Amino acid sequence: MHIDIQFVPSPPTLEILSNKTIVVIDVLRATSVIVHALSQGAAEIIPVTTVEEASHLVKTFPKGSTLLGGERESQRIKGFDFGNSPKEYTAERVKGKRLILTTTNGTKAFHSVAGAEDVLVGSFLNIRATVQRCLDLGRDILFFPSGDEGRFSLEDVVCGGMLIDLIAKKSDTRIDLTDASSSACIVYQRFEGSLVEALHLSNHGKDLMALGLGEDLFYCAQTDITDLVPTFRDGVIRK
Amino acid sequence: MHIDIQFVPSPPTLEILSNKTIVVIDVLRATSVIVHALSQGAAEIIPVTTVEEASHLVKTFPKGSTLLGGERESQRIKGFDFGNSPKEYTAERVKGKRLILTTTNGTKAFHSVAGAEDVLVGSFLNIRATVQRCLDLGRDILFFPSGDEGRFSLEDVVCGGMLIDLIAKKSDTRIDLTDASSSACIVYQRFEGSLVEALHLSNHGKDLMALGLGEDLFYCAQTDITDLVPTFRDGVIRK
Repeated sequence: MHIDIQFVPSPPTLEILSNKTIVVIDVLRATSVIVHALSQGAAEIIPVTTVEEASHLVKTFPKGSTLLGGERESQRIKGFDFGNSPKEYTAERVKGKRLILTTTNGTKAFHSVAGAEDVLVGSFLNIRATVQRCLDLGRDILFFPSGDEGRFSLEDVVCGGMLIDLIAKKSDTRIDLTDASSSACIVYQRFEGSLVEALHLSNHGKDLMALGLGEDLFYCAQTDITDLVPTFRDGVIRK
Repeated sequence: MHIDIQFVPSPPTLEILSNKTIVVIDVLRATSVIVHALSQGAAEIIPVTTVEEASHLVKTFPKGSTLLGGERESQRIKGFDFGNSPKEYTAERVKGKRLILTTTNGTKAFHSVAGAEDVLVGSFLNIRATVQRCLDLGRDILFFPSGDEGRFSLEDVVCGGMLIDLIAKKSDTRIDLTDASSSACIVYQRFEGSLVEALHLSNHGKDLMALGLGEDLFYCAQTDITDLVPTFRDGVIRK
């Protein structure tokens, strides 16, 4: 099993995506929100790239069936039902609902890898379940951190490195790591005892703290609060 | 002082390059060859991107003044005077000569950052001198690992991480690290006690060992064998 991680979120070619399991990671905060909202009973989540697209799309669904969530510059978008803090997506508010989500990095990342067959949603919240799903699928893996406006993001690479580390330890077949996936493991191991420290040190984590959203860092640094591994297919993320 | 490292060698915009010190790194082996050859008395080095360009350019200089070096698939190019092993570039052979060099990754990297004012040649061989030059210039810094055919290369990032670590320790002004430059430091610290281990673990290092060029890894992992910090300007690298 060959494992790679793409440090910068430029769209991979179809050749790179073919016959691989792709895992999109946006710890702060899109994939944490997606995993959390589905674990609270949301029916499905449609990631879209622009606010306009989200506002248009919601009108095509029956009234009351669909809610809008996401952020620009880390803040809730005017007229949207939710921002981008996982804790907002309570069972009471999301159960049985369709969510349309647009965020700066994470929702774009799904569209960058839309040509792949199996696209999983990774986060610390469902990390061991994601490891198991990757092992069950048995294919080569490409981890796809969503980055921070096109740049390398520490928190996503620590999450990717933890996934790689756990897969390498649990697999009974030979694992081939690229220089990038070996390095992600090394970066993860630095924070193994305190994942939240990586989130606090990261550029995007500091921005969120400055906006008074520091609580989200603690929430998103939790491991294994659910066994869900959502899948993105045909434009929609489902359990 | 703001310090960034670009993990994948796509050409940066002129805006990114402006008002910065750029340090190109290709430990295995182009920047190690350049630093070594100039330390042995080569007059100047012209990095070019294609074999055809090298073969054409050499004919425009007086006979005997200029030698050809470089590799394709890590092997010496037919008709060239040198391959890409630093140890071939002895004082006896290079003193006073102009060298034209073409390699798979390193010489391309110089052309990717040609729009910058100060482009330095970094390697382990001249690492502390490079740190001092960066501090003397006092500008923001972008480290530019040459990568491995467009991919992230471990050995270059370990060298970049060591440069960042030493600059951060030696600077008396505030250093701002990006998530990428913090991560490069972490990766370097993993190999701090044994740099050659990083070269042996790297994808490109393994390729070189398979070709019987393992000795180059030990050569290129040496630190501070020279105080030279070559500069690339107007297409030419000089002391």
